[in-house]
Amino acid sequence: MGLIRSWVQSANAADCPFPLNNLPCGVFSLGEDEPRCGIAIGTFVLDVTGLEEEGLLTLDGAPLLGVPFWNEVMAAGPAVWHALRARLTALLAEGAAERAAVEPFLHPLSQVALHMPFLVSEYTDFYAGRHHATNVGTMFRGAENALPPNWLHIPIGYNGRASSVVVSGTDVRRPWGQVKGPDHPVPAFQPSRRFDIELELGAVVGTPSEGPVTVAEADAMIFGYVLLNDWSARDIQAWEYQPLGPFQAKATATTISPWIVMKAALEPFRTPTPAREVPLLPYLHEPGPMLYDIALEVALQPEGGTETVIARTNYAEMYYSAAQQLAHHTTSGCAMNTGDLLGSGTISGPTKDSRGSLLELSWGGKEPIAITGGTRSFIEDNDTLTLRGQCRGAGYTIGFGECVGKVIPALADPYAR
Amino acid sequence: MGLIRSWVQSANAADCPFPLNNLPCGVFSLGEDEPRCGIAIGTFVLDVTGLEEEGLLTLDGAPLLGVPFWNEVMAAGPAVWHALRARLTALLAEGAAERAAVEPFLHPLSQVALHMPFLVSEYTDFYAGRHHATNVGTMFRGAENALPPNWLHIPIGYNGRASSVVVSGTDVRRPWGQVKGPDHPVPAFQPSRRFDIELELGAVVGTPSEGPVTVAEADAMIFGYVLLNDWSARDIQAWEYQPLGPFQAKATATTISPWIVMKAALEPFRTPTPAREVPLLPYLHEPGPMLYDIALEVALQPEGGTETVIARTNYAEMYYSAAQQLAHHTTSGCAMNTGDLLGSGTISGPTKDSRGSLLELSWGGKEPIAITGGTRSFIEDNDTLTLRGQCRGAGYTIGFGECVGKVIPALADPYAR
Repeated sequence: MGLIRSWVQSANAADCPFPLNNLPCGVFSLGEDEPRCGIAIGTFVLDVTGLEEEGLLTLDGAPLLGVPFWNEVMAAGPAVWHALRARLTALLAEGAAERAAVEPFLHPLSQVALHMPFLVSEYTDFYAGRHHATNVGTMFRGAENALPPNWLHIPIGYNGRASSVVVSGTDVRRPWGQVKGPDHPVPAFQPSRRFDIELELGAVVGTPSEGPVTVAEADAMIFGYVLLNDWSARDIQAWEYQPLGPFQAKATATTISPWIVMKAALEPFRTPTPAREVPLLPYLHEPGPMLYDIALEVALQPEGGTETVIARTNYAEMYYSAAQQLAHHTTSGCAMNTGDLLGSGTISGPTKDSRGSLLELSWGGKEPIAITGGTRSFIEDNDTLTLRGQCRGAGYTIGFGECVGKVIPALADPYAR
Repeated sequence: MGLIRSWVQSANAADCPFPLNNLPCGVFSLGEDEPRCGIAIGTFVLDVTGLEEEGLLTLDGAPLLGVPFWNEVMAAGPAVWHALRARLTALLAEGAAERAAVEPFLHPLSQVALHMPFLVSEYTDFYAGRHHATNVGTMFRGAENALPPNWLHIPIGYNGRASSVVVSGTDVRRPWGQVKGPDHPVPAFQPSRRFDIELELGAVVGTPSEGPVTVAEADAMIFGYVLLNDWSARDIQAWEYQPLGPFQAKATATTISPWIVMKAALEPFRTPTPAREVPLLPYLHEPGPMLYDIALEVALQPEGGTETVIARTNYAEMYYSAAQQLAHHTTSGCAMNTGDLLGSGTISGPTKDSRGSLLELSWGGKEPIAITGGTRSFIEDNDTLTLRGQCRGAGYTIGFGECVGKVIPALADPYAR
């Protein structure tokens, strides 16, 4: 499939992240107005709440876009998702009869503020990148024990904190926490000195489930994907994570990109998970390709400085797909709900410059990386970190929109009121 | 303080769990009617939604009880909680002028169904019982390494799954999961054979927070407490929990008792945490006694058989209080919300018969315990497990209501549709 041409001319450029093939879902506001649901098209956002109000867009016979989040559409299921895309494609396609009626609902992206695109129900983070797990395991447990014994059998995951999830552009305050270095007899309470990113893709659950679901059913439940930065305080993590896993190290913030790229937009880019090193149990078998060919990069920009791209990788590097992760998540009978967010785990490639965290890039701080005008082991105050992702089709691009966060200094006294 | 006498005579019995001193918050329904908010008093539930509708109870100048959950009252804060208790005490006290107006809003507890008393926002489980951590650590890592190095410094916690929380009386289906015994070369996917309880107390967050809070502020945020059974599949847990903590082992169900006992009802029973074995960092210092003297027990009843009380312990056995846990939870800047639920961690005492899990009681299955008519290492199908808790005052009792769950057999094929 090639580019679907739109009467919105900016959407037809080969490198535009938001062609008619994409139609990602966000929430925007104009000036002091209340936030509304919008779809990115070219250099514009289309006010779909307005289209629904005007009767130009009807989904499922009931208003689903009267709230400033996409959860009602997500819960409505695949038939509604398909109908939404079909109607928007008809309204925006080159030669559409409704152009004059629709055009007033376009606003330049440069003039709107973007908000959280959905209400996060619960957040789960996984550990499903083979290279990342090997790198981190080597640093923490030695090369011999790098990969835990269960890793090739289970998409390892742990529950994160939904209240930590924020939209791109939100400043992230360096956290305080309890840390203990190997040379210190007792722990200290201080601002994190090893604050880091994790480059991930987030899968957004649309339709809920009650009991265990198959991988195919799990794939059908997923509404779409976002870029996700799982900010991590490595010094806090190292001291707290045994025996029950990361807790406060991961609770400061989790930044997502502002547009949910619907699964349908990614269909042409499906790609299989890599060959299994050991056979998976049947409940994790995939009925088809469940990863996507999404080129990813991480950029770091110091305050007032020049940006350096510090890593380039691809979502296809994952060992487990989001559908496998979601299927595993339900094995115990765990109910999944509309708005559940699943982080893929850090996406690192096989080469040094394809690692998705500073922990790996600087090898625990031992090998600081070069950036324009300096070096970095971990994030310094007022650094801005940006994740980007895109799929390249024949003559078009599917973009995710940037996932940006600036790390601002820790509070001088976290208990001062 | 002694018993506060009520014109509801059944509330004045010394062993009644719901005297006027208690006033716990629940949600009930009568026949096919919609669920409403209620307060337990004696052998009755008082329809406080009805009192609000009739103008007999006004909180904060706005209706807070028009929804079938207590979150709006919880979010309204301590002044409203105090006003609620003061008004209900006035309405229900012996000699109250409003008796005739209030009496129609009483329904026998035996005639109502009880529902989840609040909407769970997020669920966190802790690991804060010294005896439990030592017992489990000894079994898993040997007596030398029983207590992790961070345990005496951090109230260790991990995020659980809010969607797993159900109200007392809900059947719990034995989960399937991925397990691997030490003698097996590869894992298997099968129903859990080591399904267990964890006897805990749950703290319910009332007012939200944004940044780090002190222990005193954390205590002020807590609305009340429930009994909590953190059902745990030990065989799934053993294989999955390294390196990122328990996941599917804990996601099948988490049962809570149907009444939130407000903090005010527990005030007379405050008791300090035990002496510190090593000094805590200042951010965890307690301004006063933060535990409660709550006698707890666990009973097991096979299908058609006789109940055996298999453990008796006390919440005062904890090493960390809920206020300390909540304060630690916020150190990273993690936002806490109305309806967040914090499990205390398994409450085991120092003696064998005071252990709060079958894992400990049967020492990993090696020493099955005697019950009437048999023995148990772990839960068998159709066993009913009941948690109970009470505080004994001078001439009165503060009860929690039972926290009951029956374990029903695993699905024959979890993917059959």
